[in-house]
Amino acid sequence: MPDMITVPSDLLHRQITEVFASWGMSPEHAATAATVMVETDLSGVDSHGIGMLPTYQKLFAEGRLEPKAVPAVVRDHGPAVLIDANKGIGHVASHQAMRAAMDKAKQHGIGVAGVTGSNHYGAAGWYARMAAEEGLVAISLTNVVNPFLVPVRGTERALGTNPIAFAAPTTDPERPVLLDMATTTVAYGKVNIARRADKPLPAGWAINGEGGAETDSHKAFESRRLAPLGGTRELGAHKGYGLALMVEILCATLTGARISDLATGHFFLVLDPSAFRDRADFEADMAELLGRMRGNAPVDPAAPVLIPGDPEHESVTRRRQEGIPVVSTLVEEVRTVCAASGASFLLAG
Amino acid sequence: MPDMITVPSDLLHRQITEVFASWGMSPEHAATAATVMVETDLSGVDSHGIGMLPTYQKLFAEGRLEPKAVPAVVRDHGPAVLIDANKGIGHVASHQAMRAAMDKAKQHGIGVAGVTGSNHYGAAGWYARMAAEEGLVAISLTNVVNPFLVPVRGTERALGTNPIAFAAPTTDPERPVLLDMATTTVAYGKVNIARRADKPLPAGWAINGEGGAETDSHKAFESRRLAPLGGTRELGAHKGYGLALMVEILCATLTGARISDLATGHFFLVLDPSAFRDRADFEADMAELLGRMRGNAPVDPAAPVLIPGDPEHESVTRRRQEGIPVVSTLVEEVRTVCAASGASFLLAG
Repeated sequence: MPDMITVPSDLLHRQITEVFASWGMSPEHAATAATVMVETDLSGVDSHGIGMLPTYQKLFAEGRLEPKAVPAVVRDHGPAVLIDANKGIGHVASHQAMRAAMDKAKQHGIGVAGVTGSNHYGAAGWYARMAAEEGLVAISLTNVVNPFLVPVRGTERALGTNPIAFAAPTTDPERPVLLDMATTTVAYGKVNIARRADKPLPAGWAINGEGGAETDSHKAFESRRLAPLGGTRELGAHKGYGLALMVEILCATLTGARISDLATGHFFLVLDPSAFRDRADFEADMAELLGRMRGNAPVDPAAPVLIPGDPEHESVTRRRQEGIPVVSTLVEEVRTVCAASGASFLLAG
Repeated sequence: MPDMITVPSDLLHRQITEVFASWGMSPEHAATAATVMVETDLSGVDSHGIGMLPTYQKLFAEGRLEPKAVPAVVRDHGPAVLIDANKGIGHVASHQAMRAAMDKAKQHGIGVAGVTGSNHYGAAGWYARMAAEEGLVAISLTNVVNPFLVPVRGTERALGTNPIAFAAPTTDPERPVLLDMATTTVAYGKVNIARRADKPLPAGWAINGEGGAETDSHKAFESRRLAPLGGTRELGAHKGYGLALMVEILCATLTGARISDLATGHFFLVLDPSAFRDRADFEADMAELLGRMRGNAPVDPAAPVLIPGDPEHESVTRRRQEGIPVVSTLVEEVRTVCAASGASFLLAG
């Protein structure tokens, strides 16, 4: 395809760290954030990897993202910890918070870490996966300060796409169960893809000004009103709304991340299966459960039933070999970011 | 309406305890289970209160529900506990487990309790509400050993309706945020209601033998194949499937409740907001969040945006005054249960 280039993951990592370093971020923090972003691109979640760099640049320019921030532990009591990101990029505080929750889970059987005063942390699933790779079960949640979700019966955007990620280990540490989902029917990026293709939206993706279904992708892109998972009341949209509100309470109300301060909050929960039963029994039952799902008679024999995380795993395998596709418009946006930051531009074809 | 009677909640409680006592259940256990069931009926969740008594009678008759079982603490380590229900009714072990998780949260900031070897525990939300009434944030999950949910791409029932309940305290202890949702688009009871009314189902509720939408309520009632929340792949059914699998892992795989043993598992998580921030700040931010939701411009001014738990709260207020409606067919089923159990029948008109 002529409208994209393919970039090896290590070059993408260098490009991102180069930009963050130009803002004054420490080498360690820049490397951490770049690793989260590049591994997200490897897993095929293009919306949350380098595609976010122009947004982060905008937040930096507006003074909302403080690259030199050092996350501070505000409370640390037994299995629970609260970290203030101090307006830093979300990835750095979240990596530290998930590490703390994992250590606490190994000690206490369960660990929880809240993060307040943060920014966008990339893909929710990355942090859950981090725990699963060490044999732990984990939940990763974040609220989103930009409102998209219109509650059932309402007409105005009230909550972010507030994602839920869950990961659980299997006998293959490279291949955990990994669920990572917005609590809206679709993420905003999907509306944009439909708009670019000039296609209508299915009813249940977006909401019009009267609270009904918006099927015009151009209008939906403009209004940014997304339906909660379920799409309509009849198909359970009150559940998607309820889940988004749950994420908001756990990430923001519990941690003190106030939307009025433009502060994002995150929530990490980790469980050590060994605290509940012998690991071998856990692993055997997990294998049985997943085997039962994969063995479900499929509609199409060529498209078997998947486990959450399968598509991401396949993408990682492919993109590690073939490189990461970056569309030309994004390449140009990164060039602009580099120029504005005084950073070297490394993605030239 | 001639096809129902209205029963005061204390009479319903006496009827249920009478039946449980006739099976040999201790007065304390019978009272606990009856309280959970009656309060569920008060909250309007008719499918999970006394409506379950005939099913429990069947499980008792088949030897799957052991009324004299005493829950045993299998593991107890710091903030984490695992309880074996020993085949008892789920309500008794779950009440004990949630109590333990609450006490641990008050001590450690977070508490978790798994239950294995259990049976149906009634409404997931009841246990979450129990914690919210003491100012705690809670999650209550259960797997369901009867399969209903057909995974995306599949054609066979693979998981239960695996509900997620979440509760958070507000300044009014009588009125917590309370989400209680199946991870299927609808619970099976809604299919039955459509069948009785001879109405078609919306696409997205049930699945036919080829994995497509089943809109014939009679066929859907027969086949018991329900769609995951989202309804179709296009509207996010992979998310409902993923959430149901998450509930299965936390309730069954983590606790050792094997479906092959017909054992149900539950999972209770409790957080004390005071471990993260000052309670007054938490309460103020919660009030601001809920006020923002309620203030969302509604489609219909007569139907404002709700907070999860509002319908249940209104039902409790109404039914405490007016009594609990019990349809005549259920009254007759309870009469049959009493006759089979040698218990007094107290619901005579």
